Amino acid sequence: MAKARQNSLRKKLYTIIFEAETPGGKLFDVVLLILILGSVVVVSLESIVELRRNYLSIFQAFEWSFTILFTLEYVLRIYSTPRPIKYVFSFFGVVDLLSIIPTYLSLFILGSQYLLVVRVLRLLRMARIFKLTHFINEGQVLTNALKASGTKIMVFIGTVLIIVVIIGSVMYIIEGAESGFTSIPTSIYWTIVTLTTVGYGDIAPETPLGQVLASFIMIMGYGIIAVPTGIVTVEMSRSARKSAASRVCPNCHQEGHPVDANYCFNCGYKLPS
Amino acid sequence: MAKARQNSLRKKLYTIIFEAETPGGKLFDVVLLILILGSVVVVSLESIVELRRNYLSIFQAFEWSFTILFTLEYVLRIYSTPRPIKYVFSFFGVVDLLSIIPTYLSLFILGSQYLLVVRVLRLLRMARIFKLTHFINEGQVLTNALKASGTKIMVFIGTVLIIVVIIGSVMYIIEGAESGFTSIPTSIYWTIVTLTTVGYGDIAPETPLGQVLASFIMIMGYGIIAVPTGIVTVEMSRSARKSAASRVCPNCHQEGHPVDANYCFNCGYKLPS
Amino acid sequence: MAKARQNSLRKKLYTIIFEAETPGGKLFDVVLLILILGSVVVVSLESIVELRRNYLSIFQAFEWSFTILFTLEYVLRIYSTPRPIKYVFSFFGVVDLLSIIPTYLSLFILGSQYLLVVRVLRLLRMARIFKLTHFINEGQVLTNALKASGTKIMVFIGTVLIIVVIIGSVMYIIEGAESGFTSIPTSIYWTIVTLTTVGYGDIAPETPLGQVLASFIMIMGYGIIAVPTGIVTVEMSRSARKSAASRVCPNCHQEGHPVDANYCFNCGYKLPS
Amino acid sequence: MAKARQNSLRKKLYTIIFEAETPGGKLFDVVLLILILGSVVVVSLESIVELRRNYLSIFQAFEWSFTILFTLEYVLRIYSTPRPIKYVFSFFGVVDLLSIIPTYLSLFILGSQYLLVVRVLRLLRMARIFKLTHFINEGQVLTNALKASGTKIMVFIGTVLIIVVIIGSVMYIIEGAESGFTSIPTSIYWTIVTLTTVGYGDIAPETPLGQVLASFIMIMGYGIIAVPTGIVTVEMSRSARKSAASRVCPNCHQEGHPVDANYCFNCGYKLPS
Repeated sequence: MAKARQNSLRKKLYTIIFEAETPGGKLFDVVLLILILGSVVVVSLESIVELRRNYLSIFQAFEWSFTILFTLEYVLRIYSTPRPIKYVFSFFGVVDLLSIIPTYLSLFILGSQYLLVVRVLRLLRMARIFKLTHFINEGQVLTNALKASGTKIMVFIGTVLIIVVIIGSVMYIIEGAESGFTSIPTSIYWTIVTLTTVGYGDIAPETPLGQVLASFIMIMGYGIIAVPTGIVTVEMSRSARKSAASRVCPNCHQEGHPVDANYCFNCGYKLPS
Repeated sequence: MAKARQNSLRKKLYTIIFEAETPGGKLFDVVLLILILGSVVVVSLESIVELRRNYLSIFQAFEWSFTILFTLEYVLRIYSTPRPIKYVFSFFGVVDLLSIIPTYLSLFILGSQYLLVVRVLRLLRMARIFKLTHFINEGQVLTNALKASGTKIMVFIGTVLIIVVIIGSVMYIIEGAESGFTSIPTSIYWTIVTLTTVGYGDIAPETPLGQVLASFIMIMGYGIIAVPTGIVTVEMSRSARKSAASRVCPNCHQEGHPVDANYCFNCGYKLPS
Repeated sequence: MAKARQNSLRKKLYTIIFEAETPGGKLFDVVLLILILGSVVVVSLESIVELRRNYLSIFQAFEWSFTILFTLEYVLRIYSTPRPIKYVFSFFGVVDLLSIIPTYLSLFILGSQYLLVVRVLRLLRMARIFKLTHFINEGQVLTNALKASGTKIMVFIGTVLIIVVIIGSVMYIIEGAESGFTSIPTSIYWTIVTLTTVGYGDIAPETPLGQVLASFIMIMGYGIIAVPTGIVTVEMSRSARKSAASRVCPNCHQEGHPVDANYCFNCGYKLPS
Repeated sequence: MAKARQNSLRKKLYTIIFEAETPGGKLFDVVLLILILGSVVVVSLESIVELRRNYLSIFQAFEWSFTILFTLEYVLRIYSTPRPIKYVFSFFGVVDLLSIIPTYLSLFILGSQYLLVVRVLRLLRMARIFKLTHFINEGQVLTNALKASGTKIMVFIGTVLIIVVIIGSVMYIIEGAESGFTSIPTSIYWTIVTLTTVGYGDIAPETPLGQVLASFIMIMGYGIIAVPTGIVTVEMSRSARKSAASRVCPNCHQEGHPVDANYCFNCGYKLPS
């Protein structure tokens, strides 16, 4: 009898915590969203020296409140889910744990509380509140396009890394330590900064030969930056076309029928719905 | 009788102010174009310290002249339009009001006159003078392409924001306040500056580990910058293809007939013109 | 008799100067190529202070030699061409004139000799030496693609300019003169530097609010930079497809036949070669 | 008899060194991979002043060990390959030689050991260990796309260089030496830095006219950066479509059949598998 009541409590908790269909579940999610955003803002503000100096105790009070609430939530999640082990080792289970550990850790290691920003990852779960399944689908399409072009991108990054090591070393030999090219690793860092067109300017070539080589790298970077864009664009347009070409005539194999077509536009065969 | 004359005046004003077909309407628009450009230039020049010091009274004379003219125009627009309420709350109605308020406001709040640059938005109306309906259509195509990829872009920006918060905090922990990473918000700002390949260099990593992470972010930024480009390109090419595919055979539903085709290229059916 | 000889000389000169088929014409073009490159290099080197101080007379000797040779060439071109007026007002005629004027002008106006770099435009004519008609065609394709997207690009640039004026003014109000945002024109300059992801860092926002707005601009710049890329890519792929689709069946209007096709792949009609 | 044994040794060595199918060959490749990465890391670290000062002898010991091992490997490669001449003059033969020369050279020329980073090129051979033929194919597709757009890219770079020389000179005349535009070559360098959106900020325009021209260059750079992206994207999508369109009907020449199609979707002819 007690067990049955306990089971029903568990089920109710599960509905509230893990689902968003009931009013209770929706309220829970909205409160959680506010708490997560609030806690990330508090951690960010705490890192500003002037604020930390004056309001340290307030920040710590907030931090511990958030952490205790999130710890409670974590425990309730483990309690209410029918498969606790699976939850603990799932992506969100790990993120939930990482969202509370740093506060406890900050008792021993100074500054570790800034790791709390990992809580921002919990926002990914919020897609559900706004019924953002549409969003998740779009994200899926983007991810698929990136995955499909994964090998090409790895070949590309590998080539870029080899180019960057060689050019970085040549720039180190040409420029020397006076211009800020103090070592090969620093030169490689500069080459990446230049090739990606970021261009901080903390290190910049000063010798004429160094500037000529830098100009060459930049113009080359023009072409190189075009490659990932080309890869992703082609992959996206392919996946867009694929979903458009999903309806194929079983009679003549003509592809590309609109979603609401009744007959094959090529041979007139009745399409299966 | 007086009312009839008043009505005819109203109609005449409406033709001049809101249309550009008659010589009077065209002249009005050209004069307005010059006034708008002139007033934006005056506001911009006034902000330069040396000029303001020497020619303040001239600037103020110009500013008040422009404002009085635009106020008069605003009143006439309300008077002549058959639906004043609709105009006042339309996009251009609001812009017209915002274009005159700051001058009056500058009597009370110093510096608010710089908000007058909002007048530049009134130029959007000028498309009409040059019969730029073609331009407006092109703008429509661009806007449609952006709208169609709206969800994808929001997913993309959401993901970028989450990445930026996490990487910004990690960089804050690695670099510390000595290199300019004075707080988590500043670090997040730096991460956005880097990921978008803007790279001011006002803040730049100095520790080896920070430079390694920065290099990683930049190469990742390579791929990330490719995503919006891919999205927009695919969307544009789709909308371009759609307008090319607008002529459909009523007999066999074959799409993609050229604009000057007479017969369906698939089944020979006579196409409606 | 003298006139006939003169005409034959003129014709011979025309062949050498304006054509590149004969050995004489080819030699002329190669010598000209070397002279142009040499003169641009001399002008560039002269601008370096240390070199100018020590070798001024040598530079001037070179410059006058080049100018006299190019003047001679210009006179011979006018003399030998059958339509001198047309040549003088053609693109290359104007460039040829502009390539010699600055040296004479430098007698009166100091520093005007640096305008001689306009000579680099004469290199465009050199395409002919290397039989680069293929290159010229490719250039044509690029130019066509840019022309076809001309209206879209103008709409885009107009929109960007309006955005830039408004954001620049808001940044001026937010940041004020302390951070380098000394006037609205300077702020507009900064906004362009940021939106195009150039990011010099000579001016950078320092107030938190300014940095938030800057971050917003940069992420917006992400999307904005995608637009011209999208426009050009779609236009290029269209012109590439057009040239592939140039063979149309006269019987069924099916497009897209390969260049070496004999029969229409849709209706079997014999294609005209 | 001795010769036969020698031949069998040679064959065995060849299998181990040049192939990766046998366990021995695989082990050899993995060891080589570690040695190459290790030697590049050692050379990079040696360039850091603090490390060089304290651990010079250790670095030199490592360097000579790597060089002796790579020299031995080079000799064994020449010995075991059936065509030594072809190997020596192949791409990898030259890279292998360049990977050992700098250490010997560093006995005579100080600092030449940094050229050892050329060893990183040897990693290209490693694709074989991980059975990365798939990778090599993708690299081929990328290379083909770049080759196919080679002429377009050369036309583009030529145009950019001419623009850059002219704008650089004009900026030199406008800005003068005070703002860092000390000579025409330096101005050309600045123009490339700006046009490619790198934007170091080591040189930045300070006069109003210079900033206006710089703004113009940046907005132009927007369009210019779109061109290589457009070229590469179109070329990639063409090569992607080509591989998809490889199955052509032998009866009606219809292209674009899916890989698993049995009949031509246009005329019903049985496709050869």
